[in-house]
Amino acid sequence: MAEQQQHEDKTALHLERLSEALDSGVQQQVKSLVENLSGSEIGDLLESLPPTKRLAVWELTDPTLDGDILVEVGDEVRAGLIRGMTQEQLVNAVGDLDLDDLADILNDLPDTVISEVLRSMDRLDRERLETVLSYPEDSAGGLMNPNVMTIRRDVSLDVVLRYLRSRRDLRDDMLGQLYVVDRAGRFKGVLKMRDLLTNDPATKVVELMDTEIVPIDVNTNQRQVAIEFEHHDLVSAPVVNEDGLLVGCITVDDVVDVIREEAEHSILTVAGLDEDEDMFAPVIHSARRRWIWLGVNLITALMAAAVLYAFEPTLDQIVATAVLFPVVMSMGGIAGTQTLTLMIRGMATGQVGSGNASWMMRKELLVGLLNGVFFSIILAVVAFYWYSDIGLGMVMAAAVLINLIAGAFAGAVIPVILKRMKIDPALAGGVVLTTVTDVVGIMAFIGLASYVLLAG
Amino acid sequence: MAEQQQHEDKTALHLERLSEALDSGVQQQVKSLVENLSGSEIGDLLESLPPTKRLAVWELTDPTLDGDILVEVGDEVRAGLIRGMTQEQLVNAVGDLDLDDLADILNDLPDTVISEVLRSMDRLDRERLETVLSYPEDSAGGLMNPNVMTIRRDVSLDVVLRYLRSRRDLRDDMLGQLYVVDRAGRFKGVLKMRDLLTNDPATKVVELMDTEIVPIDVNTNQRQVAIEFEHHDLVSAPVVNEDGLLVGCITVDDVVDVIREEAEHSILTVAGLDEDEDMFAPVIHSARRRWIWLGVNLITALMAAAVLYAFEPTLDQIVATAVLFPVVMSMGGIAGTQTLTLMIRGMATGQVGSGNASWMMRKELLVGLLNGVFFSIILAVVAFYWYSDIGLGMVMAAAVLINLIAGAFAGAVIPVILKRMKIDPALAGGVVLTTVTDVVGIMAFIGLASYVLLAG
Repeated sequence: MAEQQQHEDKTALHLERLSEALDSGVQQQVKSLVENLSGSEIGDLLESLPPTKRLAVWELTDPTLDGDILVEVGDEVRAGLIRGMTQEQLVNAVGDLDLDDLADILNDLPDTVISEVLRSMDRLDRERLETVLSYPEDSAGGLMNPNVMTIRRDVSLDVVLRYLRSRRDLRDDMLGQLYVVDRAGRFKGVLKMRDLLTNDPATKVVELMDTEIVPIDVNTNQRQVAIEFEHHDLVSAPVVNEDGLLVGCITVDDVVDVIREEAEHSILTVAGLDEDEDMFAPVIHSARRRWIWLGVNLITALMAAAVLYAFEPTLDQIVATAVLFPVVMSMGGIAGTQTLTLMIRGMATGQVGSGNASWMMRKELLVGLLNGVFFSIILAVVAFYWYSDIGLGMVMAAAVLINLIAGAFAGAVIPVILKRMKIDPALAGGVVLTTVTDVVGIMAFIGLASYVLLAG
Repeated sequence: MAEQQQHEDKTALHLERLSEALDSGVQQQVKSLVENLSGSEIGDLLESLPPTKRLAVWELTDPTLDGDILVEVGDEVRAGLIRGMTQEQLVNAVGDLDLDDLADILNDLPDTVISEVLRSMDRLDRERLETVLSYPEDSAGGLMNPNVMTIRRDVSLDVVLRYLRSRRDLRDDMLGQLYVVDRAGRFKGVLKMRDLLTNDPATKVVELMDTEIVPIDVNTNQRQVAIEFEHHDLVSAPVVNEDGLLVGCITVDDVVDVIREEAEHSILTVAGLDEDEDMFAPVIHSARRRWIWLGVNLITALMAAAVLYAFEPTLDQIVATAVLFPVVMSMGGIAGTQTLTLMIRGMATGQVGSGNASWMMRKELLVGLLNGVFFSIILAVVAFYWYSDIGLGMVMAAAVLINLIAGAFAGAVIPVILKRMKIDPALAGGVVLTTVTDVVGIMAFIGLASYVLLAG
């Protein structure tokens, strides 16, 4: 059991060690920790590090992995890394990428680098790249690798085997299935590796090929592509265009990325967040992204308050405080949920651990402060407009500010505490958080109101 | 664009057609719609159908797919399907399953079927099955296929190729990599298909095998396994035990299922739901499952109310209504969020569409009614206890009941409306829902209070 726990936290553990090594300043130690990692692993680590440490690690990584790392990281982190690279470094980094990966990041590169990369390609590859770019990023066409190995129907297995031996660029993921096309390039079927290996070398491809396989249409949405892969346990699949021409193939590793992406998207959008957001983006930047969602909540919470307000004349026991405090509560709840969601996601992927938790916490508190100031001014104005009472407006402003900071603090701390108590933060985090923001909101608002308004 | 939309909704469209065919009662039409689907696709469809239609489709499916379908569906749906099968049908259905799939569902089978299946296996397969069962379901050991093809270091490629030709049970997913072991069965390395095909047949395996590949420890958690597959773009990976013996292999199709499972788990647990829940479980069953979460919220909402209550003496303008209505609001919000989350998940996977939306809606309203009655009684008692006022208790009870039903209705309808307006329900659903439950809660509570309490 202890061992299992250890395995699960491997990513977080690595992050912690790396963070310590960076703090100690011993470059050799950092280098040895990064050395045996794949580009994708380093990409994940970089996303988990604050900007200064991120650049320090980036300096030390093997330049041959630069391309893979740039493909792996989110849009914002990528932009930051690219900004620090020379044109030559960039051209070298992306020159060896698979065409589908290159297509994904091409638009983020400076124009001079793009034209340099295109110039260095042969005509065939350039045309293939243009094909991928001509389809939406989230379609089968945007996902596929246009560099696909094809065979003809009328050749023998012996010829196929000799052809495979002659290809120096043979990739493992090409070998599960070989795609059979006619003279015009139209998809005709699939030759399975099993059939290639276990039959007489004199047999013709046409006798063995599987024609039952339905190719994926190039316009299919990537979510549907993922469903097809799941339903049929595919490892790779051919992609055809409107004319039935084979234009590329999709391999399961790209589909795995799609599924992960869609899952993260679902989790984050519920809290009004975006999966391409850099966890360590500047405070002002993060605060601005989250304004939108808090603003939407402000409008809806005020609509609810307006309903209460409309009832006020008939129920004179209910005073201004009762109309306004649900607004204070819900603003704190939304801000806290945003922080909570980021923390839970980060802990699940191992990107948040003891190595960077305090950095995250400081940042979240600052975001809460910034948004708190912004929204407290708006609400002070609304409260003053409704009740023509300066004191009430000030109480409202102070309470919202306190509750947004409390929400950010609770959102950062609750998942850590729950995890130590062996409770799933995704399960219990929301309810605990709402209780904290409700109680703090009520106490701040009514406490201040009784002090300021009743004492006056 | 229109075409892309069409592709995305393929699953939902299929469901709609099937539902129409079932309503029309033309068996032949139903049969032809199910005919060309894989077991996994039929499993998804069955999960999307209400119980009577589900059994009608299950009767018509090809018995050779029964095993795959049972593996695909969630625990609750599986239990329902198994209940309707004879012992002979069950033995035939699960007899041909891969050992890792069989291990997943073995514990759900009746004891007589288990012993029958075990008796029909040869000793080697029985031992392998026991190995898989001896590891936790969510570990590499529980995930792996113990039936793995191995080769020795000191043979030539020619021997390997002849060996492959002789295997009648060759599966495509075995062919990406061949695992090299020593005499004792210890993992030594991997022979890539590419190297097998492109080298002189007289070459020995030991000269070509890749010894850099790190096998997965059998105790590794499945989430970590998924991370390894993603980071290294793996198609399959060897699994070893504490002694370094090769005990199985994990293929990417199982990992895809793990990633999807973890993603659904994250989305559903936030609303206190469980991914193994049958969407069409009996109302009483679903209501009971969701009580827990509403109960937790009840306690925390009452804690917040207790804070308000404590402030009451110092602020005599705030009356009972102001203390209690946030509780009404939050109970409706939680109930609505549960329905909303189920709907959003179902719409994303295509399991909820126009074919079953009205069934879902009726069910959700009944669940809301049932839980509404339960919690309105509790809250009536609390309100009476605090304020010794029967009228207030009744108002509280009626308002909670109305708001839970409103929450269920809004949770079912809002995502459908948002989708028609081309707004992502995952993004905007929560805020719109909370506004509805807040407004309905306030109006029901204060409206009733002003009528009952002030008129009296």
